[in-house]
Amino acid sequence: MSRCCIITIGAELLQGRVIDTNASFLAKKLTVLGHSVVAKISVGDDHEAIGKALDFCIESMNADIIITTGGLGPTPDDVTMEAIAQYLGVELVMDSEALKEVESKYRERGLPLTEDRMKMAKIPRGAKPIPNPVGVAPGAWIETEIKDKKILIVVLPGVPKEMESMFERYVEKRLKVEGRVLIEATLILTNARESDLAPILKTIMKEFSEFYIKSHPLGHEVKAPCIKLYVATYSTDIDKGISRCVELIKRLTDLVKRSLPNVDIETESSCRTAM
Amino acid sequence: MSRCCIITIGAELLQGRVIDTNASFLAKKLTVLGHSVVAKISVGDDHEAIGKALDFCIESMNADIIITTGGLGPTPDDVTMEAIAQYLGVELVMDSEALKEVESKYRERGLPLTEDRMKMAKIPRGAKPIPNPVGVAPGAWIETEIKDKKILIVVLPGVPKEMESMFERYVEKRLKVEGRVLIEATLILTNARESDLAPILKTIMKEFSEFYIKSHPLGHEVKAPCIKLYVATYSTDIDKGISRCVELIKRLTDLVKRSLPNVDIETESSCRTAM
Repeated sequence: MSRCCIITIGAELLQGRVIDTNASFLAKKLTVLGHSVVAKISVGDDHEAIGKALDFCIESMNADIIITTGGLGPTPDDVTMEAIAQYLGVELVMDSEALKEVESKYRERGLPLTEDRMKMAKIPRGAKPIPNPVGVAPGAWIETEIKDKKILIVVLPGVPKEMESMFERYVEKRLKVEGRVLIEATLILTNARESDLAPILKTIMKEFSEFYIKSHPLGHEVKAPCIKLYVATYSTDIDKGISRCVELIKRLTDLVKRSLPNVDIETESSCRTAM
Repeated sequence: MSRCCIITIGAELLQGRVIDTNASFLAKKLTVLGHSVVAKISVGDDHEAIGKALDFCIESMNADIIITTGGLGPTPDDVTMEAIAQYLGVELVMDSEALKEVESKYRERGLPLTEDRMKMAKIPRGAKPIPNPVGVAPGAWIETEIKDKKILIVVLPGVPKEMESMFERYVEKRLKVEGRVLIEATLILTNARESDLAPILKTIMKEFSEFYIKSHPLGHEVKAPCIKLYVATYSTDIDKGISRCVELIKRLTDLVKRSLPNVDIETESSCRTAM
């Protein structure tokens, strides 16, 4: 289990022109793989801001794994690789494997390698390129050490279909935490106010302290109270994890029925492994 | 014009169970109001992480305005007000105005004030409560000074319809930058490769340096090239800004027609003030 940080790069995110689905895709994947995502940050296509975001993840949030998206294309505003190299204090170098990949994609269509196209094959010294089966710009897998601590930085493009395919093909398997399965369930509680549930949740949190429990108001706290309740835990043993989850739901249901008889509890998704 | 930072708080964001539309809503609003959003961060419902996010915004990103969402409810995991008070080194105090608002909402339905409900009326000392016309938990408007620099922290709830309504009613007008209008346009370029456009964009960026120019690949760089091009600038004079934008589009069209005759340019949205 690692502490993970996601950095999504691009001015369009800061201008609110694009909703950051890359960050939520990666957050979900990393959580299901067994990691703890400790922060997500978006910054612009800017050397200094990217460096500061890396610093926040590594120094303040103590992250072991950082995944970045965006800023790998051929246009002048694509500066992610350069900014990461600069942060790590290494050179940006033309990678022969990456260059072959970029070149072959343009050659297929009879297009020459221009300087702007070659730029996409430059990665920080010591990094391994990650092939891009959907688009052109390769990503990078960077294993480094900062103040005696091993840090992995995975650099992916910003176009969602490219990023998702590269993550699923080349990154996901390597980041799986063995023996750590996420078990989760979701309940819908109608006529339930968060403020009424609060004391019950406190009790459950004490008795099932290995669980993460979160209530999300769907309706109106006073006028039309309805709560989505999410419970989750990591377990080394799927069966044991699920039966503990079932036990929690039973205990919660008992407590609610006893002190809040008007509340209806429905299972939206029963105890199962997360996917 | 201020440097703004958006902090969205909630473990569900880090687990990828919720897509962060609050951050994009606020990013768009702040940009149109005339500000520069320099970073967006998501952290969990955790005192230390919230403090570190505030520190990143204020110390590293030099932000003047910080807007937070999430963590204002009555359940035990809602710790945002407490964490902000702690960061600022002030007490969390029961605000009489906020308490009246919270109490009256429960009283309407004949519900008493419990400890968990009263918690929602606690805000950092010196803060002003922001009414919540949709839900229950009030927000907070905090004007503070850190190392001789004025900082505004606006604290809003995480439920999107509550947050949006509070922002539009009580925050938006107060944050408008007078005499600073965002002018923007979007073009769709078919048969255009980012790598072919790169030299043209470099020229345009030099000649129209007051503009922000960004290309977004929609198709496939090699096989089915299609680019969305976004251009934007702030102007004190709407007419001058728009005519300069029109000039840019004309110059770009000329350059593209000259060196990339196969590229078709269509206007998706012509030069106008952003809304």
